[in-house]
Order: sequence, then C-alpha cells, then structure tokens
Amino acid sequence: MKKYTEIADINSIPEIIKEAIQLKSNPFQFEALGKHRTLVMLFFNSSLRTRLSTEKAAKNLGMYVTVLNVNDAWNLEYENGAIMNLNTAEHVKEAAQVISQYGDIIAIRAFPTLKDKAKDESEYIINSFIKYATVPIVSMESATAHPLQAMADAMTIEELKTKKRPKVVLTWAPHTKVLPQAVPNSFVKMMQNLDVDFSITHPKGYELNPEITKETPINYNQDEALKDADFVYAKNWCSYSEYGQILSTDNQWMLTKSKLSKAKFMHCLPVRRNVVVEDAVLDSEQSVVIQQANNRTYAAQIVLKKLLENL
Amino acid sequence: MKKYTEIADINSIPEIIKEAIQLKSNPFQFEALGKHRTLVMLFFNSSLRTRLSTEKAAKNLGMYVTVLNVNDAWNLEYENGAIMNLNTAEHVKEAAQVISQYGDIIAIRAFPTLKDKAKDESEYIINSFIKYATVPIVSMESATAHPLQAMADAMTIEELKTKKRPKVVLTWAPHTKVLPQAVPNSFVKMMQNLDVDFSITHPKGYELNPEITKETPINYNQDEALKDADFVYAKNWCSYSEYGQILSTDNQWMLTKSKLSKAKFMHCLPVRRNVVVEDAVLDSEQSVVIQQANNRTYAAQIVLKKLLENL
Amino acid sequence: MKKYTEIADINSIPEIIKEAIQLKSNPFQFEALGKHRTLVMLFFNSSLRTRLSTEKAAKNLGMYVTVLNVNDAWNLEYENGAIMNLNTAEHVKEAAQVISQYGDIIAIRAFPTLKDKAKDESEYIINSFIKYATVPIVSMESATAHPLQAMADAMTIEELKTKKRPKVVLTWAPHTKVLPQAVPNSFVKMMQNLDVDFSITHPKGYELNPEITKETPINYNQDEALKDADFVYAKNWCSYSEYGQILSTDNQWMLTKSKLSKAKFMHCLPVRRNVVVEDAVLDSEQSVVIQQANNRTYAAQIVLKKLLENL
Repeated sequence: MKKYTEIADINSIPEIIKEAIQLKSNPFQFEALGKHRTLVMLFFNSSLRTRLSTEKAAKNLGMYVTVLNVNDAWNLEYENGAIMNLNTAEHVKEAAQVISQYGDIIAIRAFPTLKDKAKDESEYIINSFIKYATVPIVSMESATAHPLQAMADAMTIEELKTKKRPKVVLTWAPHTKVLPQAVPNSFVKMMQNLDVDFSITHPKGYELNPEITKETPINYNQDEALKDADFVYAKNWCSYSEYGQILSTDNQWMLTKSKLSKAKFMHCLPVRRNVVVEDAVLDSEQSVVIQQANNRTYAAQIVLKKLLENL
Repeated sequence: MKKYTEIADINSIPEIIKEAIQLKSNPFQFEALGKHRTLVMLFFNSSLRTRLSTEKAAKNLGMYVTVLNVNDAWNLEYENGAIMNLNTAEHVKEAAQVISQYGDIIAIRAFPTLKDKAKDESEYIINSFIKYATVPIVSMESATAHPLQAMADAMTIEELKTKKRPKVVLTWAPHTKVLPQAVPNSFVKMMQNLDVDFSITHPKGYELNPEITKETPINYNQDEALKDADFVYAKNWCSYSEYGQILSTDNQWMLTKSKLSKAKFMHCLPVRRNVVVEDAVLDSEQSVVIQQANNRTYAAQIVLKKLLENL
Repeated sequence: MKKYTEIADINSIPEIIKEAIQLKSNPFQFEALGKHRTLVMLFFNSSLRTRLSTEKAAKNLGMYVTVLNVNDAWNLEYENGAIMNLNTAEHVKEAAQVISQYGDIIAIRAFPTLKDKAKDESEYIINSFIKYATVPIVSMESATAHPLQAMADAMTIEELKTKKRPKVVLTWAPHTKVLPQAVPNSFVKMMQNLDVDFSITHPKGYELNPEITKETPINYNQDEALKDADFVYAKNWCSYSEYGQILSTDNQWMLTKSKLSKAKFMHCLPVRRNVVVEDAVLDSEQSVVIQQANNRTYAAQIVLKKLLENL
C-alpha cells in the first residue's frame, strides 16, 4: 500500500479485514515496526473518534504522533500560479514537502464545502498533499471519502455476521444539518467489494454519485428495503444532484426498533439521538455503534502497518 | 480506587499522601505500570497547571497521553431522551463509551456555569462520564470539586508542617471575576480528614455549601481567624447562597505580609497579584504556592497509580 | 549552553553547525540523553514548521514533549507590581516558576506587536521567562530574533557551499502584511560570525537595527547587490526606523529567476509565491527552502542536546 485515501488503495479487501481483526486481539505485536517513525496528523476540521483512534493506532505500532490543528497555523494556498497577496500565507507545495520531512506518514482530515461541487470533487486538499508530499498520505475523512470508517465498518460486519452472505442495507436518515456524502460513499464502495447482499434506501433526490453506486440496487421504500436485513447502516447525507441541499427532514425515515426487526444497527457516529435513530435502538443490544468505533483503532492500525512495511 | 472525582474516593487519606510524597522522590519507579496504557485528557475548559502536571504524571508512569480540547470537537448532549435537533452533535452516552475504548483512564476538566446552581450541583458532565464510561474517571476540576488540587495541598502541608497538629485557615480573598467554589470545597473536605486545627474565614454571605463545611468553624473576622495560623490558604469564590454573585470586592480581605505573621501562604494558582494577595507575600519565603504546584504532578501520579493497579 | 534565545548564546558557531550536520546523519544516536526529560513548548503565536521540527528534535533525543497553546490557558501579566484586576489571570513570575517544575527545558514562541517598538525590543515575554524560569529557555522566535532559523540557515549554507567563502546576500522582498524583523536580525548576526562575503540589500527606509547590522554592507540597488551571489536569502520585513510601517510594496523587488543567476535561493518559509518570489525560482533546483526547513529539526536538536548535557 502506498497511500490510503480511498477504498481502491487496498489490494485485497477480505484479507486486510482479517488482518485487522487479528491485530485487534494483539495490538502491540508490531510495536517495533513504528520505532523512530512519526505520524503527523493534520486536522483542517474537528474530530473526536478519528483523532483518538488514529493516534492510538500509531502508538500501538510504536510510532511518535504529532497532532496539528491547521487552523492553529495559517491558511494554505492550493492554486497553481496564484499571486499570494491575499489571505493565504503558504502554498501547499511547500507545506506538503516540508511536513514530509517531519513525518513518515501524514494523515489528513479535510471536509467538503458542500457548496462548490466541483471543488469538493476535486479533493484539492488531500490530492495536493498526495501530489506534493514525499511520504504516504492517509485520509482521516476527505471531501468525498472516509475510507478508515469503511474499513472499521467492514470489520464489524465480518465480526458479527452469522451467515456467509448477510443482507446489508444503507439507509438515509433525517438530520438538521447539511452533511457530507463521504461516509456513505466509502461504505458503498467497501460493500461492493465484500460478499454481502447490499442495497441502498433513501428518499428520491438523495441518490449518491452514480459513479460510486454503479449497479448497487436503490429502493425508495425504506420498509421494503429493510426487510430481513442483517445489518442496517443509517446515515444522513445532503443531496448530491441538488448539491448541498436538504430536500427532506421527514422523520418517517428515522430508524426505529420496529423497523430494524432483528438487524444489527450501524452508524459511524456522532449520531443525533431521536433524529437519526430513536433511543430504543441505540440503547439495545442490536446497536453495534460502539464496536464500530472501537474498530476505528484497528482499521487505522492495519493501514499504518501496511504503509510502514512499505517505507 | 475506582475513580477520583471527589475526596471520598480515597480510602485512607493520610496513607495516600505519604505514598504521594514517596513517589515524588523517585517518580519513575513505577514506569512499567502504565505500559501500553493510555490516559485521555478531556478539556471542556482552559488549563495550564492541571494540563501539564497531569500529563507529566501519566508519562512518569509510562502511559501514553492524549489531550483533547473538547471545543475542537463538538457539543455533547447530556439530557436523557433529548431530540437532538439543535446544537448538540453527540450524546455523552456514545462519547463516554467510545472514548473508554481509546483510553484506559479518562481525565476531565469541566467548570460550572455559576448561573444555574442545580445544574452545577448535578455535576452533569463528570457524572455522565462516570455513568457511561467503562473506565475510571479522574476529575481535573469539576463544577463543585477539585480533588487533585486538594491532594497536592495536603501533601504540601504534610511536607512543611513543624508541629503535629498545625493550624490551617482557609480565607476568602477579593477578586474581580466570578469564580467557582470547587477549590475551597475540596480543600475543606480534605482538611476535615487530616489532623489539623482547621477553620474558615470570609465575609458574611460567602458561606460555602453547609453540607460540605459541616462543623468546620467559620469566623467572619479575618484578623482573628488568621491569628497564630501555620498555614493560610487564600482563595476567592463567589457566593453560594446568592449563587454566582459577587457580594464583596473589599480589598481589606487581600492577604498581606502583616496579616500572615509567620504562616505559610498557600494558593492553588493562578493568583491575581495585589488583588488576592500582595507581592510581598508571594515574593517571600513564606509563599509555598510553587511547591503546591509542583505537588500537582505527584498528586495526579498517585491517583493514576492507584487506578492503574485496579485495572 | 545555558539557554538559546540569541545567536550570542553559542560559544563556537562553526563547531555547533558541524555537530548539527553530523546529528542529521544519525538523529537517534543520543536518544538516551533525553530520557525522562520533558520539553514544554509554549506557543503564544501560530506555528507549523517550528512546532513540528522542534517536537521531532526533542523526540529524536528521547524526550517527552508537551505542547501548550497559551491562548488555551489565559493571559499572563508581565508588569512588576501590577494590580491584577483586569484581563491578566496569572503573573509570569508564577507561570515561569511553575512550568519549570513540569519541564526540563521550556521553548517559547512569542511574536512582536510591531506597534510598540520599545515593548518589542524589551523582549518582555521571553526575557521574563529567562528571568523567572529555573530551567533553560529556547526561543522558537521572539519579537526580535529567530535563532533556530538562523542555525538551520547556516547549516544549509555549510552543506551547499562550493567555495570556501561564498557570497551571501540578504534581500528584502515585498509582502502585503506587516512582518517582523526577527528572521533577518538573526540571519545577519549568524552571517557575521561565519566565513562568508555577506551583504544586505533593501529599499531605503528598511534599514534593520544598526546595532545588529553594524559594519555589514548595505546596498540599495538589488541588481548590484545580487551580482555573483552564491546564496540569496529573501525575506520581507517592516520598517525599523518608521516602526511597523510598510514603506514599499514595489514588486520590482520580487525575486525572479533572472535576478538569481546561479545563486541558491533561501527563505525561512512560509513564503508568498509570486509576491516575495516567483514560482520559477521555488520550483527550480536553485531553491533550497525545503532543505532549510528540514534543517530546522537538527538545529533544534543540537540546541536541545547542548542544553540537556548541561542540566
């Protein structure tokens, strides 16, 4: 592995998921691997789980970890040829090359604008670092992808499935804020690579990027879609076609215990209780969101391990 | 010890103070104890001493330390059953369980509102973490208590006392801002458990919570109260009965060298010079505030040690 | 070495530069030296390179590192005898003594006001820490000096020079913001101590403090000054005589490839592209700014090493 900013960076998904689960049972076994190696974590946006789990993953591998909230430094410039006489103090060309000398791996969190579709889809922040850095880049959630989350999700399904080919449904859920498509995008891509019966349900107008969903079945009827599901993954996202718009806040789409039947409930967190999903689900044994969050550590750790082995 | 959020969490106070003082003379002797263990420090409020001393304490024990300013993440919800369609993005139920998977001990600083007495006394932040976290919680100052400070204070008195039962006086002092009762509350509880001649002095209206002060003598005349004191602990706090009010800024209550006579001067810091206490005191040999601050490290370290031994 | 806040703190500059270059080839050789030692890094101002390189330097030496953005704590008071009834919560007398108990070395970044010349030249922040701290102080850029940068600059010249006595020119360059004189001040002092043919060029009115430039030649004609230069160091600074003023934004002073001829291009970064220097320079082999930034790690490391050896 040379970088991990999208699902396609993984050679063999089933294999890496098994390795991640093995790592979880003995997290310190590769502590020598990261000796004298530094992970620089750059946050352009806020974080709780990602910050703590990725930091823990790196330390489990014996790495030094440095966390920098980029807002504590200054604005970076991304345009080629820019005359930098305004609000940007340093070009990403310099920043990426310089930071590559202080870290052996650079992890980056950078959210989308959700206003400028072309800009968001260009992934200009993470792609600039990929282009100019001289060390591997890890996405801690970019404008359009959250591959570490998808890895943790896949681990959780692998750990908990009770049949060879479980039925997994990704369902849109209501929310009061405009949220990115990064998590569903990466989850969809991950599921397309696993031996699961996978489908998506959401109100009309909430279709994800069709280049991502491809042949994955979409059902606009949530009740039908959830029927006999083994895993239900709930997540809000804003409209992709009417980019950044909230088309519905219909709380009929909120996940409830009765809708779930016997399915396990998944969510990447943070989750708004009684908006996205009712308390009765989260407080029940069917919720596996805490286990998902725990797997974030080992998802990050297997990625860092693969990258370290390649340095 | 299962947690350390109040003085009552300690079984034997004199014993733990002695152990803390021993630790100070050889801080790295238990470095193996914290190996592969992580302390997550969550700051809802600003910190200097607590941040640096607690981090140092954990590293002295060989722990990994992760510091998260919660304001760099997002607002947490504390209400049961809340419909989270406003400004809170994650319920403490999830947050506490999730963070428990990334840290072996969670330390929390969360100040009171000083406006809503019932809310402050509920200690809803730290108590929510105690309730939902699956690892031990340490208070780095909560709405109504600062038990690590009180431990450092007790160590300082133990180290410096020249008689078996020294006279210790807690005196209110003026200040320009509305300050919490956390430090005096914990100091009072700590003194009630030591072999000291303890009393409190403050202007009328500044009585601390009577459930805390209990039988401890209160004298409204500072001069009388300070007479023949061995240790004078100065601290401002706002009114408890007229909750959050400043009833007096009378600088006659400022501590001066002449008032102290031969007593040692104590304060938890930060201290406003020439408002709470005059320069002549802080710049004299009688001030032990720097030693108190140093003891913060070993107070935190003995607490972390006890918690690690119990994991 | 007892501290490192100005070039004059170094006994033998050529020797320490050689040692720093040696360190670079084997950065972990003195890892035992920093064991159980803590570097406390205090940031009063934003940082990227300095933060990451100094942290890395300390870890290369086996030290613990603690980073505190002072703005996450509170305002410090620096005036002797101040009645602290306004916006400052703690006097530097206490802060410096207290932090000295949590760190074995304290590194500080504190920028000038660029409004009050006397205040800036007093270096009240860093000098207060030097005065009251009981451990060595390292400047990570103060109001008037950036000695770690100058050390990295000198290393870079030593590594790249192709003649015994290279011609080095410091040139002012345009910028849209009011910038400090710290970097040029320290660079001038450093060059005055090396075997280089050193001169300065800038528009009239941009003379640096004459107590610093002393006998160093100043040429107001950039073209003439740059002729046959081996190293051209570009940097903007505001006027010293008309303190804090921008007297010129003349982009004729911008560095271009043709102006450079065969000289190496140096800059401390961050650099505004096409304002200070054109893309063609930074994107060419003649630019050594990335190497300079890398040397920041080893500049910091040799300083920390000298200080640790003296503890």
